[in-house]
Amino acid sequence: MAINFKAYESAFNLSLAENIAKEASKITSSLGIRIILAVPSVLALKLAEVYEDIYLEHVDPVGFGAHTGRIPPDSLKTLGIKGSIINHSEHKLVLRDVFKIIKNLNGVGIEALACGDTPAEVAALAYALPAMIAVEPPELIGTGIPVSKAKPEVITDSLEAIRRTGKDIPLLAGAGITSAADVARAVELGAKGVLVASAVMKAKDPFKVIRELAEPLSSV
Amino acid sequence: MAINFKAYESAFNLSLAENIAKEASKITSSLGIRIILAVPSVLALKLAEVYEDIYLEHVDPVGFGAHTGRIPPDSLKTLGIKGSIINHSEHKLVLRDVFKIIKNLNGVGIEALACGDTPAEVAALAYALPAMIAVEPPELIGTGIPVSKAKPEVITDSLEAIRRTGKDIPLLAGAGITSAADVARAVELGAKGVLVASAVMKAKDPFKVIRELAEPLSSV
Amino acid sequence: MAINFKAYESAFNLSLAENIAKEASKITSSLGIRIILAVPSVLALKLAEVYEDIYLEHVDPVGFGAHTGRIPPDSLKTLGIKGSIINHSEHKLVLRDVFKIIKNLNGVGIEALACGDTPAEVAALAYALPAMIAVEPPELIGTGIPVSKAKPEVITDSLEAIRRTGKDIPLLAGAGITSAADVARAVELGAKGVLVASAVMKAKDPFKVIRELAEPLSSV
Amino acid sequence: MAINFKAYESAFNLSLAENIAKEASKITSSLGIRIILAVPSVLALKLAEVYEDIYLEHVDPVGFGAHTGRIPPDSLKTLGIKGSIINHSEHKLVLRDVFKIIKNLNGVGIEALACGDTPAEVAALAYALPAMIAVEPPELIGTGIPVSKAKPEVITDSLEAIRRTGKDIPLLAGAGITSAADVARAVELGAKGVLVASAVMKAKDPFKVIRELAEPLSSV
Repeated sequence: MAINFKAYESAFNLSLAENIAKEASKITSSLGIRIILAVPSVLALKLAEVYEDIYLEHVDPVGFGAHTGRIPPDSLKTLGIKGSIINHSEHKLVLRDVFKIIKNLNGVGIEALACGDTPAEVAALAYALPAMIAVEPPELIGTGIPVSKAKPEVITDSLEAIRRTGKDIPLLAGAGITSAADVARAVELGAKGVLVASAVMKAKDPFKVIRELAEPLSSV
Repeated sequence: MAINFKAYESAFNLSLAENIAKEASKITSSLGIRIILAVPSVLALKLAEVYEDIYLEHVDPVGFGAHTGRIPPDSLKTLGIKGSIINHSEHKLVLRDVFKIIKNLNGVGIEALACGDTPAEVAALAYALPAMIAVEPPELIGTGIPVSKAKPEVITDSLEAIRRTGKDIPLLAGAGITSAADVARAVELGAKGVLVASAVMKAKDPFKVIRELAEPLSSV
Repeated sequence: MAINFKAYESAFNLSLAENIAKEASKITSSLGIRIILAVPSVLALKLAEVYEDIYLEHVDPVGFGAHTGRIPPDSLKTLGIKGSIINHSEHKLVLRDVFKIIKNLNGVGIEALACGDTPAEVAALAYALPAMIAVEPPELIGTGIPVSKAKPEVITDSLEAIRRTGKDIPLLAGAGITSAADVARAVELGAKGVLVASAVMKAKDPFKVIRELAEPLSSV
Repeated sequence: MAINFKAYESAFNLSLAENIAKEASKITSSLGIRIILAVPSVLALKLAEVYEDIYLEHVDPVGFGAHTGRIPPDSLKTLGIKGSIINHSEHKLVLRDVFKIIKNLNGVGIEALACGDTPAEVAALAYALPAMIAVEPPELIGTGIPVSKAKPEVITDSLEAIRRTGKDIPLLAGAGITSAADVARAVELGAKGVLVASAVMKAKDPFKVIRELAEPLSSV
């Protein structure tokens, strides 16, 4: 499971983030699953001190150099940050830049979680060999209408699109996932995990939500 | 003086950054001047724990919400980061977004250091009432050819452009500044300080460079 | 008066455009005023054959060369097109590119009508010495709520902002202008003309609207 | 064969363009092949009056409406323009917008020639069902080093990538194509045609170049 903090007000609450990291540590140990926390860049280094599986929400298609306000993929290696989401629906890049970033991250041993809107975009991403691909229909993001129920074919067609490329990349399903049942359905369809955001970050009790969403993944 | 770390390889070296912060602390105390460190977002929170005058290199024209990989101006208040460069030559925004960000930063008491290429851009920025404006001719950035000697009229015309708006915003001069003489000349022309980057970040002895560049500012 | 065809469905109706050009010819002769028709690039050359005062709605910050799907300012000279709107609220550029385009247009004797959202943007534009500046508060565009009544200070402050730069550039007022009274009020406030779009392009009888809007300009 | 005029100075020479159109008419008749002329938007309507196979170099991901300086795909239907290049290496869009445009063009019966840098991008484009796909390694564009000789695997891998999607879209090869031998080699590799630009637009005798490049296509 990957939890995208986005830029919700709660995402910049460091003590909340640290507590989410602690909860995630417990769950990953007890269930034997992985929980990636994709956090605002400003929090990443602090959180990476207390939790292993910290991602950035975005990195930029630049190398080290005179690029004010940009984060080169190489810098994640320097900083000990495990990976990065790229090409999220809310931070789209042209495909050329997505490939440049993934190649760069792969080159320094940092994980890329590449996002696609559709099976077609997923197909292209597969050729870049990111660590994971997440498919999220943009129109369902943040709605609470789960992709796994409203558009299950987006998941199955994405799996088929990856298969046809001949690459073997695990697929996460995202958009509208808010319950254990949504996660279980995504897994049944073939997803290896889920990408969630508002369900956790806007919850009254984010810890409880994380536990619930994680449960169905223990069997994957 | 503002030091822009940019995305140089040295900019992501946390221990170097912490040492620069320590050096800056000493100099600001001894000379009675201000040294702003504009650092990569991934380092900002760590450095803000040990140094007061930390800026981001960029913030985004968004509020809190579903904006993956963006930094809302409001989040700086939450995080205790003092300010941000915006509209740097290497990270240009349309003017509408520059104004949105400055208004937002001003609204939560966070400083904006707005950058302009030319006196004309400086004039527009002045109307937004940022804490400071820096003018940097893009063609001189990183060249070691100092704006204060090669294009002094950019500084004086910028001062005049600000004056004509009826606003009172301190001006920093940037681009090609590498020596105490360059700084001294900028101050003579009316700048309240300088914006530097490569002179420090690519130096063999960045601490020495900072001390040298700071010296002429003690009298401003 | 400048009429911005935008990309309304009616804007691509060549025979309508030709009839608007004929009507504009009559009115400019009878009233002694200027009517600029800013049209989709795909129509410009055909219309320039029958009407003198044809503008493009946008040009790009590039020179002649390998730029697929871009229009260099220089090409307007080649093609005999009189000018171009640039930096319209719906097609914003960073200020650097606006200046590049205006300089390029001025260099080949083609008129630039530069748009600004605010007096601050207008101030910056004045330094570039375009043939004309139009100020349009984005929030009023297309609403039918006329800038000249709802936000008269945007017009007067823009005039003051231009005056303070020491440049002498005629100002058009735009956004929400739909009646002769709106135009008259803009002129009273100091505007030299108006920039209109939906009032004409979405009208049942666009010819009648043009005549009405033109009337108050005969005395400017 | 598709000839991309780009924004070369020669591309805005209307009489040259008309003569190229005449030459293309002759060749298409005598050889029984198709020659698409992708021209600057400002010339398209004039040229469409004298030549059937006129494309725009780009269209925008917008519908009819308040979009100053944008060309909606629907407008090509209105104007009688046969198709458009989209997503050219010099005018990249995010994949979401490429799909929006192709869907829109297909919906009104206008052809899309979608460009990709790599087999991976080609794979994604195939899912959108454009009329044609062109693959062009960006690093070879304009160099005179032909893709068909320097990187033949880009062509064959693109064909394989399309085949794997299960779609049947003809592939053009582009970048560095300047001679009949380059074209012949591309055809041997499986391309249905070529996309050329500088070879024609920067030639002393563009008519001769078109004839030479067209020759090997007569047998396809």
